[in-house]
Amino acid sequence: MKNKKLWGGRFEGASADITEKISASIHYDSRLYRQDIRGSIAHARMLKKTGILTGDELQAIEKGLEEVLAEIENGSFEFSQSLEDIHMNIESALTQRIGDAGRKLHTARSRNDQVALDLRLYVRDEGRAVRELLGALIALLAETAERHVETVMPGFTHLQVAQPVRFSHHLLAHAWALLRDRERLDAALAATSALPLGVGACAGVNYENDREFLREELGFESITPNSMDTVSDRDFVLDFLYFSAVLGMHLSRMAEEIVLWTTGAFGFIKLADGVTTGSSIMPQKRNPDVAELIRGKAGRLYGNLISLFVTMKGLPLTYNRDLQEDKEPLFDSIDTVKLCLEGMREMLATMEVESDVMKNAAATGYSTATDLADYLVKKGVPFRKSHEIVGNIVKHCESTGADFFSMAPEELKKFSGAFDDDVRESLDPASSTERKMSAGGTSRGEVFAQIKSLREKLGT
Amino acid sequence: MKNKKLWGGRFEGASADITEKISASIHYDSRLYRQDIRGSIAHARMLKKTGILTGDELQAIEKGLEEVLAEIENGSFEFSQSLEDIHMNIESALTQRIGDAGRKLHTARSRNDQVALDLRLYVRDEGRAVRELLGALIALLAETAERHVETVMPGFTHLQVAQPVRFSHHLLAHAWALLRDRERLDAALAATSALPLGVGACAGVNYENDREFLREELGFESITPNSMDTVSDRDFVLDFLYFSAVLGMHLSRMAEEIVLWTTGAFGFIKLADGVTTGSSIMPQKRNPDVAELIRGKAGRLYGNLISLFVTMKGLPLTYNRDLQEDKEPLFDSIDTVKLCLEGMREMLATMEVESDVMKNAAATGYSTATDLADYLVKKGVPFRKSHEIVGNIVKHCESTGADFFSMAPEELKKFSGAFDDDVRESLDPASSTERKMSAGGTSRGEVFAQIKSLREKLGT
Amino acid sequence: MKNKKLWGGRFEGASADITEKISASIHYDSRLYRQDIRGSIAHARMLKKTGILTGDELQAIEKGLEEVLAEIENGSFEFSQSLEDIHMNIESALTQRIGDAGRKLHTARSRNDQVALDLRLYVRDEGRAVRELLGALIALLAETAERHVETVMPGFTHLQVAQPVRFSHHLLAHAWALLRDRERLDAALAATSALPLGVGACAGVNYENDREFLREELGFESITPNSMDTVSDRDFVLDFLYFSAVLGMHLSRMAEEIVLWTTGAFGFIKLADGVTTGSSIMPQKRNPDVAELIRGKAGRLYGNLISLFVTMKGLPLTYNRDLQEDKEPLFDSIDTVKLCLEGMREMLATMEVESDVMKNAAATGYSTATDLADYLVKKGVPFRKSHEIVGNIVKHCESTGADFFSMAPEELKKFSGAFDDDVRESLDPASSTERKMSAGGTSRGEVFAQIKSLREKLGT
Amino acid sequence: MKNKKLWGGRFEGASADITEKISASIHYDSRLYRQDIRGSIAHARMLKKTGILTGDELQAIEKGLEEVLAEIENGSFEFSQSLEDIHMNIESALTQRIGDAGRKLHTARSRNDQVALDLRLYVRDEGRAVRELLGALIALLAETAERHVETVMPGFTHLQVAQPVRFSHHLLAHAWALLRDRERLDAALAATSALPLGVGACAGVNYENDREFLREELGFESITPNSMDTVSDRDFVLDFLYFSAVLGMHLSRMAEEIVLWTTGAFGFIKLADGVTTGSSIMPQKRNPDVAELIRGKAGRLYGNLISLFVTMKGLPLTYNRDLQEDKEPLFDSIDTVKLCLEGMREMLATMEVESDVMKNAAATGYSTATDLADYLVKKGVPFRKSHEIVGNIVKHCESTGADFFSMAPEELKKFSGAFDDDVRESLDPASSTERKMSAGGTSRGEVFAQIKSLREKLGT
Repeated sequence: MKNKKLWGGRFEGASADITEKISASIHYDSRLYRQDIRGSIAHARMLKKTGILTGDELQAIEKGLEEVLAEIENGSFEFSQSLEDIHMNIESALTQRIGDAGRKLHTARSRNDQVALDLRLYVRDEGRAVRELLGALIALLAETAERHVETVMPGFTHLQVAQPVRFSHHLLAHAWALLRDRERLDAALAATSALPLGVGACAGVNYENDREFLREELGFESITPNSMDTVSDRDFVLDFLYFSAVLGMHLSRMAEEIVLWTTGAFGFIKLADGVTTGSSIMPQKRNPDVAELIRGKAGRLYGNLISLFVTMKGLPLTYNRDLQEDKEPLFDSIDTVKLCLEGMREMLATMEVESDVMKNAAATGYSTATDLADYLVKKGVPFRKSHEIVGNIVKHCESTGADFFSMAPEELKKFSGAFDDDVRESLDPASSTERKMSAGGTSRGEVFAQIKSLREKLGT
Repeated sequence: MKNKKLWGGRFEGASADITEKISASIHYDSRLYRQDIRGSIAHARMLKKTGILTGDELQAIEKGLEEVLAEIENGSFEFSQSLEDIHMNIESALTQRIGDAGRKLHTARSRNDQVALDLRLYVRDEGRAVRELLGALIALLAETAERHVETVMPGFTHLQVAQPVRFSHHLLAHAWALLRDRERLDAALAATSALPLGVGACAGVNYENDREFLREELGFESITPNSMDTVSDRDFVLDFLYFSAVLGMHLSRMAEEIVLWTTGAFGFIKLADGVTTGSSIMPQKRNPDVAELIRGKAGRLYGNLISLFVTMKGLPLTYNRDLQEDKEPLFDSIDTVKLCLEGMREMLATMEVESDVMKNAAATGYSTATDLADYLVKKGVPFRKSHEIVGNIVKHCESTGADFFSMAPEELKKFSGAFDDDVRESLDPASSTERKMSAGGTSRGEVFAQIKSLREKLGT
Repeated sequence: MKNKKLWGGRFEGASADITEKISASIHYDSRLYRQDIRGSIAHARMLKKTGILTGDELQAIEKGLEEVLAEIENGSFEFSQSLEDIHMNIESALTQRIGDAGRKLHTARSRNDQVALDLRLYVRDEGRAVRELLGALIALLAETAERHVETVMPGFTHLQVAQPVRFSHHLLAHAWALLRDRERLDAALAATSALPLGVGACAGVNYENDREFLREELGFESITPNSMDTVSDRDFVLDFLYFSAVLGMHLSRMAEEIVLWTTGAFGFIKLADGVTTGSSIMPQKRNPDVAELIRGKAGRLYGNLISLFVTMKGLPLTYNRDLQEDKEPLFDSIDTVKLCLEGMREMLATMEVESDVMKNAAATGYSTATDLADYLVKKGVPFRKSHEIVGNIVKHCESTGADFFSMAPEELKKFSGAFDDDVRESLDPASSTERKMSAGGTSRGEVFAQIKSLREKLGT
Repeated sequence: MKNKKLWGGRFEGASADITEKISASIHYDSRLYRQDIRGSIAHARMLKKTGILTGDELQAIEKGLEEVLAEIENGSFEFSQSLEDIHMNIESALTQRIGDAGRKLHTARSRNDQVALDLRLYVRDEGRAVRELLGALIALLAETAERHVETVMPGFTHLQVAQPVRFSHHLLAHAWALLRDRERLDAALAATSALPLGVGACAGVNYENDREFLREELGFESITPNSMDTVSDRDFVLDFLYFSAVLGMHLSRMAEEIVLWTTGAFGFIKLADGVTTGSSIMPQKRNPDVAELIRGKAGRLYGNLISLFVTMKGLPLTYNRDLQEDKEPLFDSIDTVKLCLEGMREMLATMEVESDVMKNAAATGYSTATDLADYLVKKGVPFRKSHEIVGNIVKHCESTGADFFSMAPEELKKFSGAFDDDVRESLDPASSTERKMSAGGTSRGEVFAQIKSLREKLGT
């Protein structure tokens, strides 16, 4: 019989070719080799502690697994599709190397709890790396904001000029969103904090597994309370995919802005050569490809989330092979968020800010119309009326071509008797930002307060 | 000009009919009336505190808003599509009632921060209601588990009989998943904990808004730090939709099992008449419609999540009208999870458990084969070998029709010399559950420990 | 027993309140009343033809149903949630009115085939209305394109200026996409072309139903070949939801451009007052809300598709109550595409085109760099080299501030000896469009050919 | 400068490492090498025809490209990440080989139309392969149905026994769904029927490209009418992803049934060893992994669809780098549907049908209750009343334990005077299928008619 499986005792017929092809996962789950070996060593130590392995057997297993690890890392390990997955590939290589001790390793565990362990360890390892990159991007935003406190730009609503804002304030808006993402990542990591190993296939195991020992050995905070839930739970993968999707959404918004700001029409920033690319046909092109790719990759981050959600829908307990479909979306989302975080950081770190262009743009679109309305309020006009008065002034400028920002008090008085000579200041875009006095506004003091607060939260 | 808008100062032409139709939200955001009024009263009090309103004006506003509230609650309020949304409907009604004081209410705020407030308050109110229902379902699972500790059923992997488990253990697996959902809900509620009101449209406001006063008045934990982020952030809605989708997934799994268990083939439980329905044509039918609907509704819960994710993708800061699309998916997911939680509770509370059917099913499918393999391990056979030996025994039973559960030691000895007369016990499904000694297993003690632990976490 | 159901013969207990709430569909499927009555009349006629109803009974049924129809249309019909759905509401009202003849109507059919019929008829009716709106939008694009053949604007790739194009050409690009949507709609309608009625609940019926008679009566092209497939198939709904999602995607792209083009930075078009709205706080605002809403509604159109996809996943044959979840996404997508098509038409029909702004923008961004490279090719330089030469010229302009469009031949000759005095023409943006000679290009002739071809396909 | 790009004329700085990593596509688009070379040869021939290439140059290009093809196929070609994609890798290798002629190849085309071509050719090639596999699966269903015409099983609604059906009828229900999938595939292929090559980057090209020549050379039915639409259109990819998602949904339903039918509880079929797998821990297990994986893979097929939908949302014309995200979901869906179709075929081709188990199950669940109600109708009882009478009989059986199928006429008469001695036949499950006389029902004649009709449509 070709390719006798480690689980093949009761089988007569060999696996069909299509079965091997459709069920093999070694081409992607080989990524888990470090986690698998770490888990097996801990499991072996526990088996020694509970008397199932002798000291010699444990030593043989540890040495054998370390050799396998070295082989995989130096590229000499030969993965076999017929052995299906990383777990069986490693167990089989171990047994070839050390014989019966290897055959004892799978005592008191199942692939069901083994893969649940490996995947959690993987999310923990990679999640920490993602957390670093995310923190670095937030820190860069804070630093860039600090450098550009005096740069004023138009704040937009509906992509129409709304009110002047500090460029810093705009950058910090993204920083706060990313900080929420870090909380979401922390929640996803917390969802991996219970040790799954030691519950077996479904019902528990017929041994006094010392799961507390395993927990400590592998650095978990607690142990999972129910074996059936343990082997069928992939919430922690969903949590990571969800974190990734929200992060991808936030990055797509930043990327959209970079695409807009680098257009000829806006011209607010200039990206470095290193993050732009040319065209195969148009010699002048300098395209913001990195920003576009980050924007586009929101698609796969959403797709990965929905993919696992669909796979999980309506599955009865406990383990079903459908669950194998959890890994590829997870791996892809991990890779993708890393690329996107690095790409965004590179763009921001190397961009040139066109402060004058921004400043000029801030003095368009009647950006201080609200200031003017609020001026009237302070003179006693109810807001809804002052809003209408200023609306009429805007209408007047539009039809006559008059320049809003330089309107004289006398002209304004035609629209309302409440205008006085001190109104000029209210029309000035440059000083508008400092009038935003309330907490969270774009005034200098509030911006510096944000930077300080962000850094405290980052611990930097 | 027909339907002059409150924002219409600068406009000449009236809204096109299609504009009114496509942009009206009053037919669904009228739900927010309580939150809108609560927010407006707090805002008015703050305006009084900062000197923008007089005491009389505040009194008029409070009284006016309370009258509007009463009108809405008793059904006599007339909503106008032309006034677009709940905010404008209420402000307009207030001004009709009290005049200029009403026209001052919108000082120092914008619809952008107003709607951000209303929606957060709504999620907080409804989230608490959902949390109650969720807790009640978990408590019911614990209670049902407690009643059925002695009921043994087959545990399944791949929907094939795996190992005997306690029915309690199976129920508790779902309880733990739901408890994780409650944590996810708590995270979603935490995402609403910062007060958005007082940041205005985008840049902050031209007034010394006392946002700390508002925070305390409205019961928030903190205030949002950045005005631009505040009006463009819908993460808290996504968080709620994500919580709902994961909960929907978990419920779809429970529902699938109820559908399976009520089939003639399984017959593990019998649903009450109150939660089953008949057929328009087949007189005998008694269908588990409630379970099917809960399973099916996972679709809309996923759809609502993806819907908002798509809307948010690639939006530049700050507020864009696209964001109006946040409400309908949110409202639908809130309604749906409430229906599903109540439906699931009703089914579980009224079902009959067919213990004998379960027990008989537990004694099929060689459910103690693992026990037998572990017996050999304890006699010194490496696990991988013992697995193969038992595999051969199973193959033998299949081909000869021999009954696995009653095999005599002598027969077993033909497959391995390690078998002894004490092997009989290992074949018994009834005692198998007690052999699952490890933490999280299906033994009686572990099940009771789970119930205790769950109840502690529930605070019941 | 409260609310005795029409299917309740074998039931003892009443439906639980939550069962009524979760399973009622009358609040949305009442939309199907016309289709339901049309189907029932056809069914009754068939029952008369096959001898199950007498002529008098048929007459009573037809008259009764027409009275019910009239009541629903004039708003006097009282829908009952306890009767669950539109089918039972109508059947029950009929029987109250005409007695036993009403009780015979459901002979030889089931709600399973009845609802499959109603839903197909509904998609056919509404699909035709959507098709009209879609055709009108395409026709408007062609007409607008015709009016603006001489308007030149920058064509973008990566939102960077690429090459000058005719505004018409840009508009027509969208028209072709919408024409593909019409093909997709036609495919969705073709998917409803087989009559489902007459197959009963699942296995067929115990009567010689004349399905050919029904087919002709109801205007279908064929009859469904398999009863089990018939009652469990919702492909035609998915097809409609897919059509809607692709259309929504196309409209979101058009909407994004409208949002961009109406910014101060681009300024290519000006929307009419009728399709813009103001701000509650900023008196100057004139926001492209209709465009934003259309862009945002792509979210729900995608969400509706994924929603039904999820519900259908993994359902065993034949009818399952999960399928009730097919209607709300369908109804919502129908409503949404109608709103979006009308909104887009209104915007386009009333916009002002700022031709001069477009023209000036076409003369930026080195938009004729490719023309210059192709000039060199025609002088014998291999394209890859000419691309590099022009790249160097662009680099030179950037660093020296020289104006690309007015570079003298002598200057150019410094970069390549292949430049000659006839090169000036190649730099001119105005004439660039006419150099796009290949089929499908932006030359005048090709644009007119497109308009002609589009109109032929539209049949207008 | 490191890694000078083919588009790098105007650039000073080198690409950042992250730019190379995030924008490289060669690791997956190398799949397109055959299509890319086929397209380049056709393009070169066209350039020769229009006088841009000489005969010698064409010959050099053809020979060079064939050598590159051979190198790729024998594995000796070295792909470079720095050259980004398959197009640049091949063009660069060609130019290294043949010099200036290679530098001329990209005249009058852009990567934008080139990749649009390659991708369409790829979908056409792979789509045909998928079509074969799909046809083979439908044919197998028809063949299996033919073999099992006399096998009767319970038909289910709500997974509750509804009415007896032929196993053939059930299999054919799936065949009809798959036939609709083939129509959807044909529509997706029709969406690739227009040649994109020859429109350049966005506006058309500055050459008289003979696109008709290209069309014929490459086997397309027409040419795309608008250059801007051509380079930004990915509808044909969406169409393929949609086809794949619906197919995946249908296969998930078949897979779910296989999982159910192979449970101990149902036991309707037995899968071959070749398509089942064992457990690492439970020696008795024989799991339907192939079915579970097919069911689970619906997730990625849906995810791939939503992924591209999201990427496309809100993109302005024309080409944006986001579009690069179209390939991985497409490739994955192609691979996945092939695996699933083959896996499903293998399972069905090798399964054993347990006819006796099915037959026994058909005689449970009051499966002929509808026949009994229809019996009464034929005796003159209005259907709604007969439904209630039989409901009462069922209730009676449930409470007394009486066997429904063997009830004597006398007993039945207690429930209605309309029962006569000829009623026995109506209770018999075996003959029930033949009473389903209407078109599309489960009677023998109708089943054979379906098989004939299916085969005609398949052209087999």
